[in-house]
Amino acid sequence: MSEENENIGFELTDELLEQVRQLVEEQNDKELQKFLEEFHYADIAEILDDLNLEEAIYVIKLLDSETTADILMELDEDNREKVLRNLSAKEIAEEVEELDTDDAADIIAELPEERRHEVISNIIDEEHKAIIKELLLYDEDTAGGLMAKELVKVYETWTVAGCMRRIRGQAKDVTRVHSIYVVDKNERLIGRLSLKDLITAKSEQKIAEISNSNVDSVNVHDEAEDVVRIMQKYDLEAIPVVDDDQVLLGRITIDDIVDVMKEEAEKDYQLAAGITGDVEADDTIWRLTKARLPWLLIGMFGGIGAASIINGFSGAFQKFPILLIFIPLIQATAGNVGVQSSAIVVQGLANDTIDGKIFSRLFKEFILALVNGLAISIIVLGISHFIFHTSYFESLTICVALVTVIIMAAIIGTFIPIFLDKRGVDAAVATGPFITTSNDVFGIFIYFLIAKMILGF
Amino acid sequence: MSEENENIGFELTDELLEQVRQLVEEQNDKELQKFLEEFHYADIAEILDDLNLEEAIYVIKLLDSETTADILMELDEDNREKVLRNLSAKEIAEEVEELDTDDAADIIAELPEERRHEVISNIIDEEHKAIIKELLLYDEDTAGGLMAKELVKVYETWTVAGCMRRIRGQAKDVTRVHSIYVVDKNERLIGRLSLKDLITAKSEQKIAEISNSNVDSVNVHDEAEDVVRIMQKYDLEAIPVVDDDQVLLGRITIDDIVDVMKEEAEKDYQLAAGITGDVEADDTIWRLTKARLPWLLIGMFGGIGAASIINGFSGAFQKFPILLIFIPLIQATAGNVGVQSSAIVVQGLANDTIDGKIFSRLFKEFILALVNGLAISIIVLGISHFIFHTSYFESLTICVALVTVIIMAAIIGTFIPIFLDKRGVDAAVATGPFITTSNDVFGIFIYFLIAKMILGF
Repeated sequence: MSEENENIGFELTDELLEQVRQLVEEQNDKELQKFLEEFHYADIAEILDDLNLEEAIYVIKLLDSETTADILMELDEDNREKVLRNLSAKEIAEEVEELDTDDAADIIAELPEERRHEVISNIIDEEHKAIIKELLLYDEDTAGGLMAKELVKVYETWTVAGCMRRIRGQAKDVTRVHSIYVVDKNERLIGRLSLKDLITAKSEQKIAEISNSNVDSVNVHDEAEDVVRIMQKYDLEAIPVVDDDQVLLGRITIDDIVDVMKEEAEKDYQLAAGITGDVEADDTIWRLTKARLPWLLIGMFGGIGAASIINGFSGAFQKFPILLIFIPLIQATAGNVGVQSSAIVVQGLANDTIDGKIFSRLFKEFILALVNGLAISIIVLGISHFIFHTSYFESLTICVALVTVIIMAAIIGTFIPIFLDKRGVDAAVATGPFITTSNDVFGIFIYFLIAKMILGF
Repeated sequence: MSEENENIGFELTDELLEQVRQLVEEQNDKELQKFLEEFHYADIAEILDDLNLEEAIYVIKLLDSETTADILMELDEDNREKVLRNLSAKEIAEEVEELDTDDAADIIAELPEERRHEVISNIIDEEHKAIIKELLLYDEDTAGGLMAKELVKVYETWTVAGCMRRIRGQAKDVTRVHSIYVVDKNERLIGRLSLKDLITAKSEQKIAEISNSNVDSVNVHDEAEDVVRIMQKYDLEAIPVVDDDQVLLGRITIDDIVDVMKEEAEKDYQLAAGITGDVEADDTIWRLTKARLPWLLIGMFGGIGAASIINGFSGAFQKFPILLIFIPLIQATAGNVGVQSSAIVVQGLANDTIDGKIFSRLFKEFILALVNGLAISIIVLGISHFIFHTSYFESLTICVALVTVIIMAAIIGTFIPIFLDKRGVDAAVATGPFITTSNDVFGIFIYFLIAKMILGF
C-alpha cells in the first residue's frame, strides 16, 4: 500500500481504539472531530463497532449527520439497533434525510413498528418522506425492497443538448449515474443510454436516435435472489425496476447486490454448518444458542435413534463384538459422503445448473460412490484383517456395509436437496447436521442389516 | 417478467436446446444465426454448455468473433478448455482481440504453455499484444491479475472542454467509464473525477480544480482477496491499480470482483463440506473423486482411530454394554458442535472481525458449549433412564461425557482455525471433515475415559 492512500490500508489497532476512547473520555470534541475526519465512514463504523455503546453514541452525536448516516449503514446490525434505540425520532429522521432512499427505507424498516411512524413524521423533505413510505411497502426480499428511487431519467423526445442541461440537475442527487433511462410520455421504460453515449453524441441528435432500446429490467415484485443471479450473469452494474405496465419505478445498483451476495453466501455457509439466523462471532450467548441448539438437538435425536437400532441388534454384539468397534467408521463415512453430495447439489441448484436432470445426477453419484466406496473398503479390509484380526465373514460384512452405506449416503445427500427444492423449500437447509444425522442413523441400520444377512445372528 | 425483456426471463428449456440441435444437424446456418441473434451472449453460453462438443464448436465457428469472444468468457471453465483445444491458434487470437485486456489475458493464461506463445504471436493489434504480455506477468491472485488496462485518463493541466474532446476518443475502447483518473506529467495517479463531475462543470475549468484528490488505489501486487474486501467495504465500483511509484497501471471493476466473490464463496462452501478444487456437479467422475476421496480417507482414518480406542477399552463393554449404544450420540454431537464453532470462526477470520481476541473467543465458546451441553444432557438423561433403563452411574457417565465432549469440541473447533490462520494456512480447510474427524476420535476417547473414572472398570 502506498503512503498516499492511507484509507485503503486502514487497520484497526488497539492504539487507535485507545486514542479514540481517550478523546471520548476527555470529551475533547474538537480533537476527536479532527482525528476522525481523516477516516472513511466505513472505517469509523469499524471503530464504533469496537467501542461500547455510550462511547459510540457520543461519537455519533458529535459528528454531523451527513457522515453519521453513512456510518450507521455500515455498523453491525446489532450495534445499529442499539444506537438507534438511543437516538430520538428526530435525530434518526435527520440521519435518514441524508441517505439514499433505499438505505433510508432499510434503516426505518429495522425500527420497531411504533417508532417507524414517529421517525417518518419527523422527516422534513416531503418528497423524501413520500418515497420512503412507498419503498417500505415492498417486501425486503424483492426487487422493490432493493431499489432506490434516485436515477437519471430522460424522455425520448429530448435532444442531446437539452438532455445534458436537464440531467445536470437530476444527476446532483444521484451518487453514481451508471445508465440514463429513457421513458416515453407515459413514464414507461423504453431504452437506456450511458453518459458516455451522451458525451460522444452530437448535441442536436434526438435521444431516441442514440438510445439503446434493448434495455434489461426487472419487475418490482421479482425475488431479490433472482435479481442477484441476473445482474451477476449479465455483468450488469445497475438494473431498472418497472411495474407490471413497464412504468419505471427505480433502479438497483451493484453495490446492493454485492451486499446481498455476501449475506446469502454467509447464510448458506452457516446453514451447512448447522447454524441458523445469520449470527456473528460477537453475538450474545443467547442468540448463538438459539442459532445452534436446534441443530444439535436434531443430531441428538439421531444419536438416540442410532442407540435404539444398536440396542435392537443386541444379539449381534454378543456374538460378534468386533462389529461394534466399526460403528464410528460407518457413521463418519456416511456423514461425510452425505454432506459432500448435498453440498454439490445445493450449489448446483443455486447456480441453476441442475434442472430436471435428477436421474442422471443420481446415477453419477452412484458411480462416484461406488468408486470411493471400493477404494475405502480395500484399505479398511487390510486394516481390519491385520490390526483387528477380523474373520473372513466379519471383514466381508464391514466392506459390503461400507460400500452400501456410501452409495446410500450419496443418494440421500443428492435426493433430499432436490426434493426440498421442488417443494419450494430452501435446499441449503438440507446439508450439514440434517444430512449427517439422517445418514448416521440409516448407515448404522444398514450396517447391522448387512451383518445379519452375512453373519446370520 | 414483462414481455419486452425476453433476455431477462431467459430459461433454458429442452425444446430450445432441441431446436438448436436440429439447426446444427441440418447445418442450417442462416436460420441458426437468426435464431441465436436474439439471445444475450451469457444465454448462448448456457445453451452451449448443454450441447456436445462438436455442436458447440459448430456454433462458435458460425458466429462472428465479437459475440463468440464474450460467449467463451461465460462458458464453464471445462467446456471452454475443450472448445479452445479445438480452435486453431489463429482462431483463438481472433477471439482474444475482441476482449478487454483482462479477459484476454485470462483466456490465454488458461492455455497450455506452448500454445500461449502461438496465440500471442497471432494477435495482430500490437498494442493489445503488448498489454496482454504485460498482464500475463502478474499472478492471477493479485490486483495485477485482476486489472484491465482499459481506462480513461486525463492530465491535471487539461481544461474540462479539452478533456471532453480527448476522452471521447479514449472512452470508445472502455466498456464502462466509472471514474476518470487524473495523473500528473509522470503518469502518477493524483486524483479522480466522475463523468458526472465533468458534465456538470464549466467548460473552461481546469481538471485540477474539479478533480477529487482523495483517490483510493491498490498496489499491483496486493492480494486479490484484499482487493475484494476493500471494494466491498468502501462500496467501490472500480479501483485504480498503481505500481510502487504510484504510476497508474490499470483498473479493477466491480464485475470482476463479483466473480471472485462468487468463486471464493463456492470454494469455502465446498471446503466446509469436504470437497477441494472448485468442482461442479457436472465435472467428470475422476475429477470429483480427486476432490472428494482425500477427505473421506481422513474420515476413514478417524474411524479406524475410534475403532482402536473402543477396542482398547474392551473391558468396558463387557461390564457395561449399554455404554456402547451411546457411541453414535457422543460422536454426532462432538462433530456437530465442532463444525458450528469452526464455521463461525472461519467466517469471523474472513471478515476480519476476530483479531487477537482468542481468549475471549474461547471463553465465549466455553460458556456457549456449557449451556448447550447442559440442555442436551438433561434430555438425554431422561431418555436414557426411561427408554434404555441405564443405572444411576451409567446415566451420570453419559451426561458428564456429553457436556465435556461438547465443551472440548467447541474449543477444538475454535482453536484450530485460529491456529491455522496464524500460521498462514487458509482456515477454511479446518471445518467439515477435518474438525468432525478430530472431534469424533477425541470425543469417543473422552467418553471412555470418563466412564472409566465414574464406573471404574
